[in-house]
Amino acid sequence: MVPPEEFQLIRKWLSGFDRGPGVVLGIGDDAAVLRPPPGRDLAMTVDSLVAGTHFPVSAPAADVGHRALAVNLSDLAAMGATPLWGLLALTLPHADEPWVAEFAAGFRALAERHAMALVGGNLSRGALMATVQVTGQLPQGRWLGRDGARPGDVLLVSGWPGEAAAGLALWDAPPSTARDGLVRRYLRPEPRIALGQAALGVASAAIDISDGLLADLGHLATASGCGVEIELSCLPLSAPLQAMRGPSQARRDALYGGDDYELLLACPAAAQAALEAAAEAHAVPLTRIGRFCEAPGVRLLGEDAEALDPGAGFRHF
Amino acid sequence: MVPPEEFQLIRKWLSGFDRGPGVVLGIGDDAAVLRPPPGRDLAMTVDSLVAGTHFPVSAPAADVGHRALAVNLSDLAAMGATPLWGLLALTLPHADEPWVAEFAAGFRALAERHAMALVGGNLSRGALMATVQVTGQLPQGRWLGRDGARPGDVLLVSGWPGEAAAGLALWDAPPSTARDGLVRRYLRPEPRIALGQAALGVASAAIDISDGLLADLGHLATASGCGVEIELSCLPLSAPLQAMRGPSQARRDALYGGDDYELLLACPAAAQAALEAAAEAHAVPLTRIGRFCEAPGVRLLGEDAEALDPGAGFRHF
Repeated sequence: MVPPEEFQLIRKWLSGFDRGPGVVLGIGDDAAVLRPPPGRDLAMTVDSLVAGTHFPVSAPAADVGHRALAVNLSDLAAMGATPLWGLLALTLPHADEPWVAEFAAGFRALAERHAMALVGGNLSRGALMATVQVTGQLPQGRWLGRDGARPGDVLLVSGWPGEAAAGLALWDAPPSTARDGLVRRYLRPEPRIALGQAALGVASAAIDISDGLLADLGHLATASGCGVEIELSCLPLSAPLQAMRGPSQARRDALYGGDDYELLLACPAAAQAALEAAAEAHAVPLTRIGRFCEAPGVRLLGEDAEALDPGAGFRHF
Repeated sequence: MVPPEEFQLIRKWLSGFDRGPGVVLGIGDDAAVLRPPPGRDLAMTVDSLVAGTHFPVSAPAADVGHRALAVNLSDLAAMGATPLWGLLALTLPHADEPWVAEFAAGFRALAERHAMALVGGNLSRGALMATVQVTGQLPQGRWLGRDGARPGDVLLVSGWPGEAAAGLALWDAPPSTARDGLVRRYLRPEPRIALGQAALGVASAAIDISDGLLADLGHLATASGCGVEIELSCLPLSAPLQAMRGPSQARRDALYGGDDYELLLACPAAAQAALEAAAEAHAVPLTRIGRFCEAPGVRLLGEDAEALDPGAGFRHF
């Protein structure tokens, strides 16, 4: 369905970067025509960002554009996939051209960094919301699943978990270098595509952190049919996070806060060095924070474990 | 992002039909893994249905589910593509399990008729809205474009245009066999997949009617760089449409009303019989209603042309 006339005028902002590998026919017909790379599998996912639910209504449009794509690319990263093509459905209360231009700029900059073409779009009148579908490629029959972790595997996390949640919590706080950096981590998550690619065939399992480290780790452990122990003292807590939130809240942000879009990776101990080397090559922090075990559930180990978790350091998922 | 807990309970309704050709890994990980048919191209499109904009809020959930998929499959039909996989992003104001169960039933029944697997989903809290992305397959390097019509080609339309618009106009009218049939045509458009497949390589151009016959024909003519003349006396106006709307309004519904999701096809005169035979084999009405010409624009021919069109039987697009 073509949107009303005033929406037609703003379509141009979303239709200029539909060329790239495998794009036979871009935007402008009833559908795009794509040529998949021979002998490869495809990974596909879809995710929505609803204003007021998934981002503050006052968030800058360029950041919303970045984030709407980033949360989807993060899912591809967690599969070890390489981005190819995206489609975007955007609903707006009215045809706000400057907003759409900014949104598109944020979306496009991230897409171009990952050589992803935007091959389809839909603009409708409605509550502010962006739904993005992305397709990536994978070697045939191979992907980073959630279900491959085994007892004895080590648990690694990329980046600085908790910073995004702190950024959201500090949304209305007075600007400062530390506060602004945390807010930016919330608004501009960096999908760990290169790390996911490097982990494919090396890591035994992966998931990206959207709901919070513990919650997503629980999904991974449950899918893998094992348990996991986290050494609280190993949690990477960034200096800005600790400075702005204090050591205790910083840990809670890292464990329970969502929106990080970092990767949780499981791997055999012997493969840890290879993952660390790959992470270093891509300048991505990667920290060992625990170990998988037979007993189901997620356990927190360390002197503050009980205080941190009302369930006495043990959570069932 | 995983939705709030009460939304988890209703995910089951949307996750049960993720198996099918090429589905290596269905719903449950960070992304689905799909294996494209070797040597084929893919067609991809996305479309949103917003409650209150694209369907009445009081529309039955099963019909919304059908329609959300149908409008997307219609785009694949207009490319001549065969459905493979779909992804669904659904936003709901609250976790209304009966509504979702009905929605899923309507969506699923249509998906299964076209052997399409639902390989990904996203549930969020927000204004009622369904965004669907679909992928179909095409022979390599071939598709039904909008831009292939040539002067001398004939213009054909499938089905009974105008019925859907009349159904929407009669939404609050008293129930009757005729009224209910028209409403059903609005709520349950039938994507012309088989006709589109048959037209691939035979028709010179195609588009589906979402905005109205004249509007979408205008897009096709503009893309093709030619004009087109419609014989008003050839317009197929169904008996229920004429009975409920009168002959004059019936024509307006057919020309200006949207939501038909019928196909407009252009083809050389010599190919008309082949298309008609294919349509008959699939029990789809197909009517020749005009002819393409050199002079740009869409002209209405017939004694009522001026009355029908304020622009004296001529529209620029």
